[in-house]
Order: sequence, then structure tokens, then C-alpha cells
Amino acid sequence: MKAAIVMGSKSDYPVVQRAEGILKEFGVDCETRIISAHRTPRIAEGFASAAEENGIEVIIAAAGKAAHLGGVLAAFTPLPIIGLPIKSSTLDGLDSLLSIVQMPKGVPVATVAIDGAENAGLLAVQILSVKYPQLREKMKEYKQKMEEEIIKMDLSLQP
Amino acid sequence: MKAAIVMGSKSDYPVVQRAEGILKEFGVDCETRIISAHRTPRIAEGFASAAEENGIEVIIAAAGKAAHLGGVLAAFTPLPIIGLPIKSSTLDGLDSLLSIVQMPKGVPVATVAIDGAENAGLLAVQILSVKYPQLREKMKEYKQKMEEEIIKMDLSLQP
Amino acid sequence: MKAAIVMGSKSDYPVVQRAEGILKEFGVDCETRIISAHRTPRIAEGFASAAEENGIEVIIAAAGKAAHLGGVLAAFTPLPIIGLPIKSSTLDGLDSLLSIVQMPKGVPVATVAIDGAENAGLLAVQILSVKYPQLREKMKEYKQKMEEEIIKMDLSLQP
Amino acid sequence: MKAAIVMGSKSDYPVVQRAEGILKEFGVDCETRIISAHRTPRIAEGFASAAEENGIEVIIAAAGKAAHLGGVLAAFTPLPIIGLPIKSSTLDGLDSLLSIVQMPKGVPVATVAIDGAENAGLLAVQILSVKYPQLREKMKEYKQKMEEEIIKMDLSLQP
Amino acid sequence: MKAAIVMGSKSDYPVVQRAEGILKEFGVDCETRIISAHRTPRIAEGFASAAEENGIEVIIAAAGKAAHLGGVLAAFTPLPIIGLPIKSSTLDGLDSLLSIVQMPKGVPVATVAIDGAENAGLLAVQILSVKYPQLREKMKEYKQKMEEEIIKMDLSLQP
Amino acid sequence: MKAAIVMGSKSDYPVVQRAEGILKEFGVDCETRIISAHRTPRIAEGFASAAEENGIEVIIAAAGKAAHLGGVLAAFTPLPIIGLPIKSSTLDGLDSLLSIVQMPKGVPVATVAIDGAENAGLLAVQILSVKYPQLREKMKEYKQKMEEEIIKMDLSLQP
Amino acid sequence: MKAAIVMGSKSDYPVVQRAEGILKEFGVDCETRIISAHRTPRIAEGFASAAEENGIEVIIAAAGKAAHLGGVLAAFTPLPIIGLPIKSSTLDGLDSLLSIVQMPKGVPVATVAIDGAENAGLLAVQILSVKYPQLREKMKEYKQKMEEEIIKMDLSLQP
Amino acid sequence: MKAAIVMGSKSDYPVVQRAEGILKEFGVDCETRIISAHRTPRIAEGFASAAEENGIEVIIAAAGKAAHLGGVLAAFTPLPIIGLPIKSSTLDGLDSLLSIVQMPKGVPVATVAIDGAENAGLLAVQILSVKYPQLREKMKEYKQKMEEEIIKMDLSLQP
Repeated sequence: MKAAIVMGSKSDYPVVQRAEGILKEFGVDCETRIISAHRTPRIAEGFASAAEENGIEVIIAAAGKAAHLGGVLAAFTPLPIIGLPIKSSTLDGLDSLLSIVQMPKGVPVATVAIDGAENAGLLAVQILSVKYPQLREKMKEYKQKMEEEIIKMDLSLQP
Repeated sequence: MKAAIVMGSKSDYPVVQRAEGILKEFGVDCETRIISAHRTPRIAEGFASAAEENGIEVIIAAAGKAAHLGGVLAAFTPLPIIGLPIKSSTLDGLDSLLSIVQMPKGVPVATVAIDGAENAGLLAVQILSVKYPQLREKMKEYKQKMEEEIIKMDLSLQP
Repeated sequence: MKAAIVMGSKSDYPVVQRAEGILKEFGVDCETRIISAHRTPRIAEGFASAAEENGIEVIIAAAGKAAHLGGVLAAFTPLPIIGLPIKSSTLDGLDSLLSIVQMPKGVPVATVAIDGAENAGLLAVQILSVKYPQLREKMKEYKQKMEEEIIKMDLSLQP
Repeated sequence: MKAAIVMGSKSDYPVVQRAEGILKEFGVDCETRIISAHRTPRIAEGFASAAEENGIEVIIAAAGKAAHLGGVLAAFTPLPIIGLPIKSSTLDGLDSLLSIVQMPKGVPVATVAIDGAENAGLLAVQILSVKYPQLREKMKEYKQKMEEEIIKMDLSLQP
Repeated sequence: MKAAIVMGSKSDYPVVQRAEGILKEFGVDCETRIISAHRTPRIAEGFASAAEENGIEVIIAAAGKAAHLGGVLAAFTPLPIIGLPIKSSTLDGLDSLLSIVQMPKGVPVATVAIDGAENAGLLAVQILSVKYPQLREKMKEYKQKMEEEIIKMDLSLQP
Repeated sequence: MKAAIVMGSKSDYPVVQRAEGILKEFGVDCETRIISAHRTPRIAEGFASAAEENGIEVIIAAAGKAAHLGGVLAAFTPLPIIGLPIKSSTLDGLDSLLSIVQMPKGVPVATVAIDGAENAGLLAVQILSVKYPQLREKMKEYKQKMEEEIIKMDLSLQP
Repeated sequence: MKAAIVMGSKSDYPVVQRAEGILKEFGVDCETRIISAHRTPRIAEGFASAAEENGIEVIIAAAGKAAHLGGVLAAFTPLPIIGLPIKSSTLDGLDSLLSIVQMPKGVPVATVAIDGAENAGLLAVQILSVKYPQLREKMKEYKQKMEEEIIKMDLSLQP
Repeated sequence: MKAAIVMGSKSDYPVVQRAEGILKEFGVDCETRIISAHRTPRIAEGFASAAEENGIEVIIAAAGKAAHLGGVLAAFTPLPIIGLPIKSSTLDGLDSLLSIVQMPKGVPVATVAIDGAENAGLLAVQILSVKYPQLREKMKEYKQKMEEEIIKMDLSLQP
């Protein structure tokens, strides 16, 4: 099982790494790439067109501002694309969010929260777990672990 | 292969039907339900908790305004949840969108465009096609058909 | 007389404490809990379902981003729920506000300002004072004290 | 048990009537008034100052645009005030919502959804039910009835 | 000739002082007050009702969040009211702006930019200069001085 | 006493007429002009530069979209300028409002609500009444009349 | 001299035709195409890559929602690209505008107003007129004609 | 070949310099000016009216808040105007963006991203390159260099 993470610029990497971390934690092979929809469009096309053949099963596309990367990749592949809107220096990420989520009819991009890198990773895992039962089991454990953490936090507050 | 579509109110059905139509077109079994996160919360819990056992592999949750349905279902199941924000009578769907897409760390909801029911259906198909190669093939055909339609439109415009 | 404050994450506590402070100042018993609508949904259900029996008369629910906590608790209890939207790292609290205030017909959440923790506490007191006359009297004193502070500020400015 | 509904203009009445309907349905005495914070400010002051003495226990204030009514009433009474933002001809109710919900520290207004008149009524009932057990029981029945309606809707959709 | 500046809280004073400075620069008598629409409503009423008699000819009202101060003063006086929206800790001043500028029919508040204290002062001067020719002359000089500053800046940039 | 109303396009006239009506009602002489900041900029300059000499004492500038008219007139005259944002076919008037109200330091435009033409007229009257006592008296009567209308509305609602 | 207009869907044509009309009025050769960044991405690439060779000197790209067309074309050609945001059924065109105008560093798209098709056409003419003096002259006449129309409108209003 | 950059205030220069840098990098003559639409309107008119005669072929206008500079220059010249919205201390640049991009019919301003100074410079180059083939070639090299940088970044990430 294999995922790819693509980001439009190296400056997105501090956020994107948290998605990478989730994939590693779940044991999902992950290819991380810097590909720009606008500055390396032919590489974007090549990458997306060959993704399925290269064994990639789900792609996370992280981008900010007029964030076209997810849509551009989705144009060239039938694989599910997860869009991760990156907050940039103006408009608080609203531009990134709307540029990704409001995809027109026919070409969806599965959007998560602004800077929601962990959730992009977890969504990739949930999608892969449709096929890989071991990921489903790990996801259940992950949910349980989150539950326990909240319970512990809650207890720490009690007198 | 089986998907579920859940909506918070029957008034969402005219939009939701377009997602249902896509699933039928791709031959995906689909259970369509009206379940409210706020008015039938125990049914929501029951539905989501049992969804995996009942053979459901992906869930589309459609809701408007303070649209909690996707997040509530996601709380009770490790399955991938697709959130479909419904435009309501005020704020042009921005409330629905933000209530769905801005899920906190740990529990993602894969969000599509406001009223983007076809894309919710197509995303479900793309997710299922990670496991079912025949859906992948149909998705490629679907993309090709869209391409041909655009080309035909384009030709119709030429002198 | 007894209130509960529930927050979705320990990171909300610095804001939430100001609500707790108000309740203490008015002598209202207060149970403060960390319960997540998405990560500990069954605890949320259990808490809300039993709240009335446990003597709780009003609940403050603090959450950020796609803030479903208030709505989820409101689904399981007839008690009045006060929603306190927490500002998070993106969108300046607009997502939290809309996720809480735009509740669909049938299940209200009484929403206060973004990060308006004192007002959440004061609203709880006002609600309880419908039943408890001593709180009503204290509220009048509180209003008078605020008035005096403004008057003092105003005087300090005069030549 | 007695509530008051105050609106800033007769043009708000079609929306406001739905709140009135809820109060009647629950058997709550209701005084409905047209009082403007800006055009009849002394009447607003008089009304709010005397509300407690006149047996009113909770007030719903409905207003649109720069909606100051709720805040102005809250300034003159320790009673809980419910703010109902009315959508007007521009900005889709966002101005009304922010003018009501963003109350500064010290004087809360319990805000419901834009045009959410039923919820304003239900919140008034929930607040009164802190004191009146018979309202609490009716609220439980109301919630059950809503549940049954959703279940019926859901069944009507099943094959 | 006399103006008043009223602010809702002492925390607004750093911004408000810039308006005061403008009035002093133009030789306009200025009474600066801290009066809260919500915490000292009777003082607000008293101040506004007596303003005309007290020789005040224009009032600047500075407030943040659900900024009702300008509207409340305008309710009690026929004097022109200038609204100065103060940016607060959330929503970047949009709530203050809409709460002030969107006044309903019949009771205008002359709104300037968020945190635009100098412009509030200058607008007060322009309004007074309808009556006082010496202010008109000073305003022309002020405009000329601004022009010269820009020209000097421009020259400093030229090689 | 004399005011001018300037609008950027004849399509704004249905809204603008309501401002004209107010001025007539108060007996203020009014010159109504169609002048575009972008299409007849030299006429705008000429009009604004000569306005004071021509006996105009206050100017209402109505414009939509990127509404520069108020700012452009303010650049050429020391007279007080009232900005009336017109709602256009997209963005619900938010663009008009921000283009008018957010004037940079030094050149204020007194902004009223989106499509708030009556208030633009009333603000002009309030500004002129600084000089003309008869307008002040009429404004008091106007306020009283509004009060009586609300009281009548309120009475019509009582049983 | 030759321009191209590309739109993402035939449903954009009623708006786009107004840009076409401007180009015809100025005697600019115009190729109008329906090409989708997401549904016919290879045609988009082919079109943009060959545009310069094919004698096209400026391109207008019209699209709605997550409007990637302008950015995608700009990725493949050094020609100036004009972005025309189309208002769609939700969010009033804000999504289209931000998706087009907020292009990241390196690849600009010259954005005009939402549904501002005439301005897209006029901007194309202004760009071409850098090279073609006859277009510059026609543009001056066009500006003069606009001026005359406003003057005529203004006169029609005078008594 | 010659461009001009005009900004409304010296405080915009740190952002504007990045546009200047691009023009220098491409060997385009550049005149940089501080001219305010509101504080030096006659200089703005003079500059724009004479720009064509003075050999200027494209103008970049940078301004913040109610950013009228681009529109005002466009009113007086047939040259293409590029609008560069500057983010100011409130509203995150949304006011600047809408004030520039939403120009009414007849007078376009080619808008780039908020604080997108490099893109303003690059757009100027693209516009000039319609006439100057050497700029077109340099633009192609620039695009290639960007491509190579992304590729290098991407490689640096690979194991």
C-alpha cells in the first residue's frame, strides 16, 4: 500500500510533515514530492498520469493561496485526491480552502481543514483501509488511543 | 461494494439524489438514510457503529447550517466519511462548509463543494475503486466521457 | 444549583477558566470536564444523557474549528446549552462561531462571542437566576459593580 | 411563567411569529412587542427596566442589520436575553449575527441562528424549564416527537 | 465649537487619542468620556440627551465587537454621530464595522475605517466647518500639508 | 442651505431617490448629479473643486462595486462627504462598503449602510443642522414621528 | 492582432459573450474555446503551449467555483492571461475570485471583477494596444464615448 | 520599453520594491513614484494623463485599504493598469483587493494577489512582451528557471 504527498513549494513542508508522520505511523509507504501546478506543470501531469501505474493508491496535495495543485492532479488520474489547504500570509487560508474544495462537477478533491495535515494523513489511511484490513484495525486502535488521551486529560482536571 | 448516503433532513434530498444517481450509474449499492445528528442522535450512533459490520465501505453525509452530521458519524466509525455541505437559506452555504471541513485533529471528514452532490458520489466511487478495479475502469471511462462532452461543446462553438 | 463546563480539548482551558471563574464568583457549583464530541462521543452521550439526573441545570460547551460539541450535547439533553466558540489558529474563530450558532431548527445552542468565556459564565448565571433569586440579586450587584468601574475609568480621564 | 418577544420593526414579524408559536405550543405566556432600540429608546429602557417586576422571566429580542436591540435590553435588566438575528436585504444576515453575538464582556446575549425563530422559542422554553418542571417534561416530549418525525421521514425513503 | 469623544472602554483609548489629537490640532474643544452602552446605559442616555444643551455639536463614538455605542447615542440626540469601529481580538474589526455602519433606516451613524481615529477627528472637523469658516480654512491648509508631505516623499524616492 | 447628491451611474437612481426624498422633506436644496469617478473624472474634479464656491455644504456620493466616487470627491474638496454604498449584482454590497469606508488616513468619507439612502439623507440633514437651527428642530420632529410610528405599530399588535 | 477567450463550461457563455463583443467592437480577431482545466487538461496544455505559435497574443480565461483555468493556461505559456471570475450558484463568486487572483509568486493572472466580462475584453484591448497604435486610438474614443454617455445621463436628470 | 510603479504611500515601498526588482531583472526601464489618489489627486491626474506621452507603456498601482489609486489612474489614461492590493493593519487585505478588482464596467484594472508584488512585475513584463520579443524570450527563461528551482527542491527531498 502506497500513498504520495505532493506539495507546491518547500515552504509547505513544515505543515506537510505532519501528514507524512501519520502515514509512517500507520506503516503506509509514502513518496513525498515538491511539484508545482504552475511552475512544473508537465511534471505534475507526468506524475499524476503515471501515479496509478507506479502503485500509488491515494494522493495528498498540499498548496496555498490559489491552490490549484489538487485539481490539476485530479485532472490526470482516477485516484482519490486529498486536498490540504495551506494557510498563507494573507486571507488566513480562506483562499486556499475555497480554491480546493469548490471543485466543479466531475472532478472532486477530498478537502480537509486548513493546515489540517494530520487529518489529510488519517483520511489517506481511511481510504486505503477500504482495501487493507490491517489499516482498518490500526485506525480503530488510533481512535481508541485518542479516546484514552481525552479521558486522561479529563481525569487530570478532576479534583 | 456498498456505500451509504445519510442526510440530516428530507429537504436535502433534491440535492442528495444527484449523489445517489452517480452511485447507481457506477453500479455501487447504496443505502440512503435520513438521520439527524441532533434529532435522532442515538440512531446516528447506531448506524455509524454498525456501518462496517453491515458491509458499508464509505459514507456520504449531507447536511446544512451547523452541519455536524459528518463529524458525528466519523466519531463512531473508522470508515471514510465524505461531507457534502448543503446551502441553506442564509450565509450561502459558508456555515455548512466550515462546519464540515474544519474538523479538528484526529477525525477527518472528506469535504466536497457546497451542493456538490455529484462530486460526493464520484469521490465515493474513487475511494471504493482503491479496492475494486472495475470501478477504477468505469471511472476512467467516466473521465473520458466528460472529456468528450467538453470537446463536443467546444466544437459546437466553432464556426 | 449546579452548572457544567465541557470543553473539547485541554488547549481550550485558558479561555474556559474565565467562565469557571465567573461561576465560582457567583457561588454556582461547577463541574468542569474535557469531553470531545469526536474523540469520546460515547462519553459525550453518557454525560449529556445523565446531566439532568446528576443535578446539572445548565451546560457550557466550549469548542473550536468545526465545533460540534454544543450541538452533540444538546441532542442528548433537554437542558439549556451555552455554546462558547473558541478562536483557533485559522479563520479567526469564524468557523467555530458558525458551527455553533447556526444550529438547525429544533435544537438550539445559546451562543456567546468568540472567546467570550466570561459571558458564557454570566449567561449561565442569568439562566439559573430564573430559578434562584439569590443569583438574580448577585447579578444586579455585578451589573452595578461594572457600572461603577466604568464611571471610575471615566472620572480618571477627566481633567 | 412568562416570556416576552421584542422586535425592532413590524417587518420582522413573519419570522418572529414562529417563536411566538413555539411559546404558545409550550403554554408559556408571551407578551409580543415592537420596540426599537434606536427609534423608541426610552420605551426600550422602560420595558427592560420593568420586565422583572412585570413577571417576565426571559426575553427574545429580534432585530436585523446593526441589531442593537438585544444588547440594549440586556443593559437594563438582569434577565436572560435571547438574540434572534434577522436576515435583511444585504449581507445575508451576517451583520445581524455579529451585531448580536459579539457582545463585549459583562453583558451576554444568548444568540441563535439567523432567522432561527423556532430555536429562539425553544431556548426560551429550555431556560424557563430550569424552574418549571412541566416545561422540562414537554421539552422531552418535543424532542421525542422530532425524533419520530425524522424516523418516519427515513422510513418513507426506504424501499 | 465643541465636540465629544465617547469610548466604550479605557482599552480603546490608545486608538481614540489620535482622534483627540486631531481635534486639538484644529482647536476644537473636546470632551473625552468613557461611557458604555451596555454597562452604563443610563449615563449614555443622560449624556446624549443633554449633549446639545451642553454645547456639543458633534460626537465621535468609538467601540469594538458588537459596537452599539454610536447607535445608542444616536437614539437620544439629533446631533451627528461619527462611529469609529475598533479592531478587537477576533474577526479583525469586521464585527465592529458592521455593528456600526449597518444602522437601520432613520438613525444614521457616520462610519469611518476600522481603527481610523484620525479620520474620525477630521470628519468631525469637516462637519463643524459647515458652521465655522475658520475650521474650513484650517482644513484646506491641512489638505495642502498632506499634499506637500506626499510630494516630499515622492521626491525623496527620485534619483 | 444646499446639498448635492452624486451617483456613479443612472442605475443607482432608484436607491438614491430615497436620499433625495429626505432632503426635500427637510427643505434642503439638492443638486442631483450623475458623475463617474472613472468615466468622467475631470467632471468629478471640476464638480468637487467648485462645490464649496457653488454653495454646496455637504455631498452624498453613491456608488457600487469598487466604489471610488466618495474618495475621489473628497480628494478635491474640504466639504464633508457622505458615502452611500450601493449593492450590486455580486458580493452583496461588501465590495462597495469596504471601498468606501476603509478610506486611508487624512481623507474621511462618512459611510452609511449598504443601500441606506434614507440614512445618507438624514446624515446630511444632521450635518447641516450644526449650522441651521431650523433643521435641528425638524430633525427632532422627525425623530418624534418615528417614535410615534413604532408606538402605533406596537399598539396594533396588542390584543 | 489576435486574442483567445477560453471558458471552462458552455454555461459560462452568456457572460463570456460580452467579452467577445468588446473584442469584435475593437476589431480584434478572437478565437473562442471551451476547454476545461479539469476535464480536458491535455487540450488545455496543448492549447496554451501552442498559443504563441498560433499567433495568439493575449488570453482571457473565464471560470467559476475553484477556477483553475487561468492558472493552468498561465503555466504553459508566457502570454499574458486575463482571469474572468464567473459567479456560480453558491458563495456569490468569492470562490472564483480568490481562486484566480491569489496566484502564487511567479505565475500571474490579470484578474478583473466577478462577471466583469466587458472589462476582460477591454483589458485585452489595452494590452494589445501596447503594440498596436490603432487600438490605442480606438480605446481613447471608447473612453470618450463613455464620458459622453455619462454626461448625457447627467443632463437627462437636470431640470 | 518603460513601466511606471506608483504607490499611495511610502509605507508600501517594502512590498513594492519586489515589483521594481522584477522589472530591473528583465531590463525594463522603471519610474517609481509616490502619488496618492486622495492626497495628491491633481498630481495623479497629471501623471496619468501624460503617461503615454512620456513613453510609459504600462503602470503598476499599489495601494491598501480603500485602494482607489489604480482606478483613478485608469480614469485618465488608456494604458493598461496593474493593481497591486497591499495588506494593511485590518481585514487582511480583503478591502484592498475588492477596492481594486471590482472595477465597474468600462475601466478595468488588472489585479494580482494581495501583496503579490513579484507577480505585478511579471505581469507588466508579459504585457510589454506583446510588443518586445526580447522580453518574451526572457520570460521563457524565467519560467524555465522557476521550473528548475522546483525540480531542485524536489530532488533535495528525495532519499
